[in-house]
Order: sequence, then structure tokens, then C-alpha cells
Amino acid sequence: MNYRLIIRMIGRILQIEAIFMIPALLIAMFSGESAAVSGIGMSMLLCLITGTSIGMIESKNSRFYAREGFVTVGLAWLVVSLAGALPFYISGAIPSFVDSFFETVSGFTTTGASILTDVEALPNGLLYWRSFTHWLGGMGVLVFALAITPRSGDSSHSMLYLKAESPGPKISKLVPKTRRSAGILYAIYVVLTVLQFVLLLFDGMPALDAITLAFGTAGTGGFAIRNTSVAAYSHYAQTVVTVFMILFGVNFSVYYMLLVRMFRRAARDEELRVYLLIVVCATLIIAANIYSELGSVYESIHQSAFQVASIITTTGFATVDFDKWPEVARYILLLLMVCGACAGSTGGGIKVSRVIMLFKKAKHSVYQMMHPDSVHVMHISGERVDDDVIRNVDTFMTVYIIIGALTVLFLSLDGFSFETNFSAMLACLNNIGPGLGVVGPAGNFSQYSDFNKILLSANMLIGRLEIFPFLALFTPAIWKK
Amino acid sequence: MNYRLIIRMIGRILQIEAIFMIPALLIAMFSGESAAVSGIGMSMLLCLITGTSIGMIESKNSRFYAREGFVTVGLAWLVVSLAGALPFYISGAIPSFVDSFFETVSGFTTTGASILTDVEALPNGLLYWRSFTHWLGGMGVLVFALAITPRSGDSSHSMLYLKAESPGPKISKLVPKTRRSAGILYAIYVVLTVLQFVLLLFDGMPALDAITLAFGTAGTGGFAIRNTSVAAYSHYAQTVVTVFMILFGVNFSVYYMLLVRMFRRAARDEELRVYLLIVVCATLIIAANIYSELGSVYESIHQSAFQVASIITTTGFATVDFDKWPEVARYILLLLMVCGACAGSTGGGIKVSRVIMLFKKAKHSVYQMMHPDSVHVMHISGERVDDDVIRNVDTFMTVYIIIGALTVLFLSLDGFSFETNFSAMLACLNNIGPGLGVVGPAGNFSQYSDFNKILLSANMLIGRLEIFPFLALFTPAIWKK
Repeated sequence: MNYRLIIRMIGRILQIEAIFMIPALLIAMFSGESAAVSGIGMSMLLCLITGTSIGMIESKNSRFYAREGFVTVGLAWLVVSLAGALPFYISGAIPSFVDSFFETVSGFTTTGASILTDVEALPNGLLYWRSFTHWLGGMGVLVFALAITPRSGDSSHSMLYLKAESPGPKISKLVPKTRRSAGILYAIYVVLTVLQFVLLLFDGMPALDAITLAFGTAGTGGFAIRNTSVAAYSHYAQTVVTVFMILFGVNFSVYYMLLVRMFRRAARDEELRVYLLIVVCATLIIAANIYSELGSVYESIHQSAFQVASIITTTGFATVDFDKWPEVARYILLLLMVCGACAGSTGGGIKVSRVIMLFKKAKHSVYQMMHPDSVHVMHISGERVDDDVIRNVDTFMTVYIIIGALTVLFLSLDGFSFETNFSAMLACLNNIGPGLGVVGPAGNFSQYSDFNKILLSANMLIGRLEIFPFLALFTPAIWKK
Repeated sequence: MNYRLIIRMIGRILQIEAIFMIPALLIAMFSGESAAVSGIGMSMLLCLITGTSIGMIESKNSRFYAREGFVTVGLAWLVVSLAGALPFYISGAIPSFVDSFFETVSGFTTTGASILTDVEALPNGLLYWRSFTHWLGGMGVLVFALAITPRSGDSSHSMLYLKAESPGPKISKLVPKTRRSAGILYAIYVVLTVLQFVLLLFDGMPALDAITLAFGTAGTGGFAIRNTSVAAYSHYAQTVVTVFMILFGVNFSVYYMLLVRMFRRAARDEELRVYLLIVVCATLIIAANIYSELGSVYESIHQSAFQVASIITTTGFATVDFDKWPEVARYILLLLMVCGACAGSTGGGIKVSRVIMLFKKAKHSVYQMMHPDSVHVMHISGERVDDDVIRNVDTFMTVYIIIGALTVLFLSLDGFSFETNFSAMLACLNNIGPGLGVVGPAGNFSQYSDFNKILLSANMLIGRLEIFPFLALFTPAIWKK
């Protein structure tokens, strides 16, 4: 294990985080928020000093393998979240450090789960920083997600990104490719965010509301700066948010295909089709289910579409308290929570592509039981899926279920109902934000014990990093020389 | 597809079922229950006439492959349940046929879920038949379960039993083996049942109570003939039931090993060790959790052990309303519901051996992510587990989750809470009996709609047949010539 190189990289990341705090500092200054200014300023100073000092550590060798990659990625998200919590804690806006940490992990992992009971009490500078973490987290996860999640027709297995940074001969040719595609992805990400920001400004929305809403949508995060979340804005704004949530839940390689005019291939993308099909079906079923309460077809579809888009993309914005909806609607939202958005998007969850693979495999297995000698090859979007990829999906699901089951066990110590605990686990592990019951859209996570807040923070990180890089940190074998 | 042979076999099974109704008929006669006598008598007549007439169909060829095996097994359970429901329906004891069918499926699949609000109102003859279905179901599943469930060190894959009835050359040597081991298993099953019956009689328990309780325990079913389930009996009787529930949850091949004096191999059985470890740990945690309410260490452990044994073996007897227990205890029981008993026992659920494999696989996968070039072979009880077996476990889990998720979707139409619907699905799919909430030990399944009662009946059959044989019935491909 090349400790020196890992520490050096963490140092650099801390320096970058300090720079990213500048806009929040400026907003706090212009808003005349002295506590926030000193909180953010102090945090920047701490990040810079620590980052610069450990960033100076020299590493004799530059060996960087999968193990190092896992540890760096896992550690980076942890350190960035710890440092990002400082502005909230030092300024006194969130008095408990565990709460500050939970809120920041929730931000960077683009979860959007909150321990705040009164969001509007936060100073503007910190509101900006809180939402900006979503945007940064979404950016951080984008390339990572594209590389690590299973794709059909892609012979590389799930460690493309991590391997891309290692120096082996097989890998070298991937480095420029990854760097270039990262650039294109970021450009798409920025353009879409700016577009949404401008469309929201048209509505006469204050700039801070518009930019934080755009950050929360782009990162599929879900932090809003109003206590009533997106219910505080006009129908026009809600519709804009709905459309952009769906857009940010799409695999970014589809946008890449559109950019390079591969229209037919983009249209053939099976994950995209299933994703849109789920959105449409779920919207219609839920709209029908809540129609009797609302009495208006337009209003039913408007609310249903917003909530479906918010949940399946794991954004977590709310316009209504869907926890009060009838059981069918609530359960479908729970299924969407499990499913999540497309692979290669900023969204969390199991991902539509994995769900497709699981369904296809189940179907073929039943067939194979009947015809033991048949051989079947799975295809997605008309392209062959490697056995390796399918096996990784199985492993992912198993570890995912084990982590989920153990998390709910510890959550149940706090005495809430199974529904609350189960949906709280899902909301964090799948980076959604709100769940049902106590942690529903009208509630928050403040009532859990500190231990469980830390456990749920770990769930957010595990979910965001698609489980393995974070688990690696706690595997003794990896720390051996 | 050899339709004629399949129909012929179903005919024979119906004839056998009629014969098995004789004891119930005699009990109804001695108890002077005229409605029950005519109900059971009519049912026997119907079974005999139908069975004999379709049993006379001649089949020119005797080809019998996996496809035929799947269809026969699936169809047999369905037909036996339909015919077994007749005594309840014809006698008028259960006025709705859907309810009668649900109750009988619950009996044969050794689930123990009931739609009856007043069990004691049933005549003795039908009470005996209801519990006897548990015992017959347990018998029917025993050989099937031993053959179909994954075992370590067993190179045959999951269709041993079905293949054993097919005429291929590879298979012929398995036939005598299967027949002989079936005989030994049945002997163990009968001896254990009689032993429990006698031990319960020592307590001065009425013979009908003792025999039905023994049937319910042996089949890990859970039907009791008292409204308060096993709470109606003495502490001694409850302890006997606890011990025998645990015994019937053990893989019967362990008893076989003990019989042929392979003590060391029996003691080394990893599934048995993990099973007992789970029972002990769960009992202690729940006892600690309910101690503050009960105030007595003995009483806490007594109740906790009974409920843990009842749930992990998927029996479903109750001595208390555990739905009222604190959240940790309830959630641990929910985990035990998912887990289930040992493979090769009469119990249902995912089975301890599959859980062990899933955990081991997850552990190795994390290690393999770190060391991509390492090769790992899974061992259970010191013996190598085939890749085929592991893959089947993955498929099983996927199909299991899909069926569970869809079932809860339809259950939520009836408006009960997520917890009720989720535990109702688990209680049926894992052949447990009671769940939580509305379907908890103090409640029953009568409040679900007819559609959902049939859906839950299907779940019981799917769970009992380890998913695939029942699904095969609904796969169009299998019905092609």
C-alpha cells in the first residue's frame, strides 16, 4: 500500500475544497453574515493548512494499483465530508458535529437527507455551501459512476476508473480516453445546470433560490433552501424542476451520443427506454391513485410526475407530503426508491440497468431450468453483456441487502416503526433523501441517535460509491503492506 | 410434454389423498359431527371418482424429463390443495371456497397462515384434517427439499429429485438411492412425531390436541386447534414444542448421519452450527429486549426461545402476541422470517445454507475486488461448493425478491400498512404463518380481498416448491410439445 501517495492526494483534494468554499464565503460577506463568514473562513484556513502540509509529503514510488484506488476514493469522500462539515459546525449554525457531518455527507453524496428542522434559519452563505456540495458531489460521482457501473457492450469490468489511474501497460491507453470523456461530461453537466438556472430566473425567482435549486437538481441531491422544499415555488418552476430531474437521471453517455450525432444508438439505449417507461407508468398509476383525493386530473399528474421524478432519480425534492398518500402510491414510491436512476447519471440507487439485468437473468434462469442444456447470452441494447458484469451485479445485490438488513437492525434500536427504519435505510443507502413515516418529506432525520446518524452517513457513502470502495476502508487485508 | 403420464400420476395422487382422509372421517364419526362426516365423505368420493377415472389414462411412452417433473410437482401441489379444500367447503365449515383453498394451501405448504377468526368453532374431524395436511405436506416436502436445495459437497445440481424420476442412463443409479433414503427420512419423521405426541400426552393433554400439535410441529406448519395457539397449554408443553420445533428445523441428513454413527461429520455440519448459533443469539437478544416488560429472566428466555424457534423454523405457533414486542425484537423476528430453517428440513424460507453462501460470497467478493487476480473456492462444512450451486442461489434470490416485491404491490391495493403487507408476503412466501400488524399472531388473513388471498396462496406454493416448479406452470414455453 502506497500510503505516502494516498496522503499526498488527499492533501491536494483538501486544498481544492478550500477553493470551492470561496463563493459561499463571498455570499456570506455580501449578506453581512458574520458568523457564517468566520465559520467558512476558518474552515478554508484549516483545509488549506492541513492540505498544504500533508500535500508536501514526497512519495518515492508512483505505484498505484486497484487497492490504492479503492482506499483513495473511499478516504477522499470521507475527508471531504469531514472538512465540509466545518463551516456548519464552526459558525454554530449546526451545534452538533455529528449533525454537521450527517448534513455534509448527505450533501456530497447528493442524498438530501437532512437533520435540520428549520432550513430557512441557516445563513445564505451556508445555504449556498450546503447546496453546492450537491453539485460538487454530482460532478465527483459522474465520471466515477460512468466507469464503475455495469454497461452492456463494455468488456472492461467495474474498475475501469480506478485502473485508469494506475500505471500498468494495459491501462495507459485508457488514461487519455477517461480524461477526455470526463471533460465532455463536465461540459454537459455545466450547460444543463446553467440552462435550468436561467429557466428558473425567468420565473422571477431570487438568484440564490434558482442556483441552489439547480445545484440540488443537477446533483440529484434534494436540499432546498425553503422549509416547504419545492412547494414554495410556482407550478412553472416545479415543472422545470421535474423535467430537469428526469434529464439528470439519464445516463450521460446518451447525451454524449447525441452530441456526436449517434441519434439511432441513443434511441436504442435500453436502459433509457425502460427508465422513461417506468417514469410514465409510475406517474399514471400514482396519479390515478391520488385522483380521488385531489379531484383534478392536471393536479394529480403534476404532483405525481414531480414526486416520481424526484424519487426515481433519487433527488428527494418534495412538493407535497407523499407520506400521506394512499398505500399503493406510497409503495410504488418505495419501489422507485429501490430502483433508482440510470447508471452513469448523478442519481443513486441500484440503477435501472442492474434492475434490467436482474429481470432478464431471472427470466432466462426459469427457462434454463426447463431446458438444462440451453445456453443463453444476455443482451442489453442489442449488445452482449459479459458474464463478469452479471456476476458483479449479483455480488452487488447481495452485499447491498446484507448492509441494508444490518442497518435496519441498528436503526430499530431507536424504537421507530419498521416502515420508518426501512425507508430511512433506503433513503440513505440509495442517496434519495426523504423516506416514509418519521423520515418522510414532512419529517427529518434529527430524531435518530448520534450512533445511527453516523451509521446512516456511512450508508450514504456506501451507496454513493457503489458499495465497494468504502467497504475497502474497513477490510483489514487492504491495509497490509 | 408427456401429458398422459402427468395426468395419470395426478390421478393416483388424488386416490392417495382420499385414503389419507379416512382418519379425519373416523374422528368426525366418533365425535358425532354430521356436517363434517358428509363433507369429508363427499370429498373422498369426489377424489376417488376423479382420481380413478383419470388414473386409467394409458400412456404409450414413459418419457419423463425435467420439464415433466416440474409440471407434475407443481400441478400435484395445486390439485392436492384444491381437493383438500373440499371437506371445509362442502361441510360448510368455511363458507367461501377461496378461504377454504387458502386454508388448505396453508396446510399442505406447512405455512400455518389462517383466515379463521374462531378456530375452535371447527368440528374435530376438520381440525384433524387441517393439522394432518401439515404433516402430509411436511412429508411431501422432505425428500423434495433434500433433493432440490443446495448442499455442499454435492456435485449434482438442484434437480436431483426431478431427474431421479426420469429414465436417462446417468440417473438410473440414483433411483434406488433416492427411494432408500426417502424411506429412512420418513422413518425419522414418524419416530420424532410419535415421540413428541407421547411427551405431550404425559402432560395430560387431550389426544386430539397432542396429535395436532405434533403434526403442526413436525411439518413446521403452525396450525393449532385453540384460538390462543400454544398459549393454551402448559409451560411444559410449550417447552416440548420449542425443542421439537428446533429439531424439525434441522437438516434431516444430520439425523441420517447420527443413525449411521457418522458423529464427527454431523458435528462438523456448518449449517447446523450456524442455525443453532442464530437460535441462541436471537433468543438472548430478544430476551434482553423484552426483559424490561416481563421482569423475569426465566419468563423472558422461555417466551423468546419459543418465538425464535417458531419463526426461524417457519412453524408459526405463538404463545404471546409478539407484534406488541419492542421494535428490536420485532425486527429480529422479521430477519428470522427471511432466513428460515435448514435446507433438507420441513421448514421453509431462504434456508440457512443459502444465507451462509450469500455471506461467504459477499465476503470473498470484497476481497476479490482488492485482489483481482485471486481465485477463490467456497467451502461449506469443509467441502467445496460448486459454482453451479452458487449461481443457482443467486438466481433463487433474484426471483424471490421480484416475486416478493410484486406481491406487496398487489397487497397494498387493500390499504393496509407497508409493514402488514411486507410481513404478510414473507409469512406466505416463506411458509411461516403469522406476520406483523394486521396479520400478526393475534390477527389473521381474513381481511385481505379474495384476489390477494389467491395471490398469497400462490406465494405459499411458490415458496414451498423453492420457486421454480410452480413458476414452470405459468411459463408458456413448457407447454409446447
